[in-house]
Amino acid sequence: MAEQPKAKHVVIIGAGFGGIRAVRALSKADVRITLIDKHNYHLFQPLLYQVSTATLSIDDIAYPIRAMIKNQRNVLFRMGEVNTIDFERKSVILDTEEIDYDYLVVATGGVTNYFGIKSVEKNSFGMKNLDESVTIRNHILHQFELASYEKDMDKRRALLTFIIVGGGPTGVESAGALSELIYLVMAKEYHTLNFKEVRIVLVEASDKVLAAMPEELRETTVETLIRKHVEVRLCVQVTDYDGERLTIKGGEIIPTHTVIWAAGIKAAPILDKLNIEQDPARRAMVNEFLQLPAHPDVFVIGDSAHYEYSGRPLPMIAPVAIQQADVTAKNIKHLIEETPLEKFSYNDVGSMATIGRNAAVVHMGRIKLKGFTAWLIWSLVHILRLIDFRNRFVVFMKWVWEYIFYDRLVRIITRQ
Amino acid sequence: MAEQPKAKHVVIIGAGFGGIRAVRALSKADVRITLIDKHNYHLFQPLLYQVSTATLSIDDIAYPIRAMIKNQRNVLFRMGEVNTIDFERKSVILDTEEIDYDYLVVATGGVTNYFGIKSVEKNSFGMKNLDESVTIRNHILHQFELASYEKDMDKRRALLTFIIVGGGPTGVESAGALSELIYLVMAKEYHTLNFKEVRIVLVEASDKVLAAMPEELRETTVETLIRKHVEVRLCVQVTDYDGERLTIKGGEIIPTHTVIWAAGIKAAPILDKLNIEQDPARRAMVNEFLQLPAHPDVFVIGDSAHYEYSGRPLPMIAPVAIQQADVTAKNIKHLIEETPLEKFSYNDVGSMATIGRNAAVVHMGRIKLKGFTAWLIWSLVHILRLIDFRNRFVVFMKWVWEYIFYDRLVRIITRQ
Repeated sequence: MAEQPKAKHVVIIGAGFGGIRAVRALSKADVRITLIDKHNYHLFQPLLYQVSTATLSIDDIAYPIRAMIKNQRNVLFRMGEVNTIDFERKSVILDTEEIDYDYLVVATGGVTNYFGIKSVEKNSFGMKNLDESVTIRNHILHQFELASYEKDMDKRRALLTFIIVGGGPTGVESAGALSELIYLVMAKEYHTLNFKEVRIVLVEASDKVLAAMPEELRETTVETLIRKHVEVRLCVQVTDYDGERLTIKGGEIIPTHTVIWAAGIKAAPILDKLNIEQDPARRAMVNEFLQLPAHPDVFVIGDSAHYEYSGRPLPMIAPVAIQQADVTAKNIKHLIEETPLEKFSYNDVGSMATIGRNAAVVHMGRIKLKGFTAWLIWSLVHILRLIDFRNRFVVFMKWVWEYIFYDRLVRIITRQ
Repeated sequence: MAEQPKAKHVVIIGAGFGGIRAVRALSKADVRITLIDKHNYHLFQPLLYQVSTATLSIDDIAYPIRAMIKNQRNVLFRMGEVNTIDFERKSVILDTEEIDYDYLVVATGGVTNYFGIKSVEKNSFGMKNLDESVTIRNHILHQFELASYEKDMDKRRALLTFIIVGGGPTGVESAGALSELIYLVMAKEYHTLNFKEVRIVLVEASDKVLAAMPEELRETTVETLIRKHVEVRLCVQVTDYDGERLTIKGGEIIPTHTVIWAAGIKAAPILDKLNIEQDPARRAMVNEFLQLPAHPDVFVIGDSAHYEYSGRPLPMIAPVAIQQADVTAKNIKHLIEETPLEKFSYNDVGSMATIGRNAAVVHMGRIKLKGFTAWLIWSLVHILRLIDFRNRFVVFMKWVWEYIFYDRLVRIITRQ
């Protein structure tokens, strides 16, 4: 820093897809960067559900931030939680310190949205971060251990009922992976259990799973899930969950010890403290250059930002964050050089989801794929997006192992 | 079980090296087995320190017990903690259930021995199980994050002082691995820290490290540690540790937030409840057939057993447990068949420890090796002892990666 006394200071909050991309995109700029995250790792969120379902370890999808930036001279990392931001003094306020900025990038990502249902928030499992995923894994494995010596049939059935709420990609992928964990792996090992007592239920409030997909692929998805013994229940709204009984609008009650809530995401709570305009998902309204309208030195990207495109807000997915990071990096350079800013325009890369072995759906522009081909594409894309060679290699190896031997070796209960 | 109504019931408590070996050794016997463990995994303890120092993930060294026994017809697994054993009623008492046995094998392993120093027990880190190892990893990584923005030099030095107590293999291997983590990996990433402020101290109460090794290898070990910037302090006794200040007999005080206690092991506390004769390390005194003298249907093996050999109790190491498991399995068959029991006799396989890259010491019979050859042998032996091909392959891959790139990728802080 002493070498570049005049370089502008860019503070980036959040080391997710958007934050890391912004750091990289500014690597050759004449700025000094401080990257802040409450964790010391970057997380490859799309494979979180494979941690929950015992295929991958945490270090397969989490990568030390310092290792990612060690060769980039103009960036310092600061692990810490941001309490608030003072736009007037241009300062990010942490517990122990204040960090002044010239330009700020808010890329704080999303958290689980319980839509205000307190009992669900308290008793169900979110799946948006690493600790939550490990907690789910421990919990699921533990239910089977408890069930294996539970003599009361009703209690056993409640232990063996797994509800996943939310028919988006996370819910669908989790349900498929959980089904294969249970019916292909655990069924070979719990000789005293009757696996007909197991229920996996995917609950969705709307009338569709994977709402962004074309109808044909949605139908394939539901058929595949049903073939994997997943009950798919559409138009079902959860109203309450006390930890033992899930209540559905209309009054039906399902006894269960496991509710995984994948029904919604909202922006991280830091945005609520900033006195800015937010949408119902708590995202900051940004202008066409991704700035806060009242604070042009502050950019908000990814899950934190509400950006209208073709009349709708963009979805909270990684490609949006990455593309917005690129434009933000350019716009920061434009501000420094006092040249005109660039408008953000979204390049839709399509969407995909896997339901299990040889089964996925892929939708890119006019291309619609399903089955084995889609599954190969899904696997390839996800392997290639992982951070480095070691992660790619180990994940590939674990997938091949699981594919051949129908085994999942991360079935380790670390806490209860 | 219904198929073998007359088969004797063997209950084995503990799925460590001894317990698992006993299960395997009884695979063809006409018995039914219940294996009990409080965890659902078998742990490869010799590599625990590589979890603490961010080389390996938990699933590299922990293996689901049910996966290990799924093809063995005569065994059931029960995850649960044993409260006590009723020798009269021949029953193992868990929280929720009692399990009757015809023959019992106690293989409950060891826990950290703090020798009654309460403040150390409360404030230092043990390293005998998976959760403890992960806690140490999180803690060490977190100290560096805290130090990276601590402006007070004394506070920073305390954050960067790491004390390992105990000069046995665990202490030596941890000190070496921690040194390489810090000086070879982290030094490249914490650009704002002065690594001369880091201290790693290996403290040993006796006048030797690796006491079981010949003098020549002990000297090599100390020299290697010193070359790796580890302060080796012999004849130093810890008397108190309040979480911030470690007190040594004589009065010296070392400010530190990290004390790893690898100074002793004792038998698991379950033995204290059984009203049996125990040695100072709480191990059960067993006869030459490994039975409790007063209860010939109860065998005690491994770290749980005190067995005199050549005038000394056998050390608490895996080869002892494994060899005792084999004899115990034979003796259970002898009891069933009413044939004479076999005496246990120990085959000393030697000992080895690694201090880091290209550096280890190996002592087997008359063979004394050090340096690169010893390190290769150490690596090979540990790879081959791992449970299955996938673990071997992934661990091998990670070691090669670390060796080539001087990197450790499990530097993930999961909890604080």
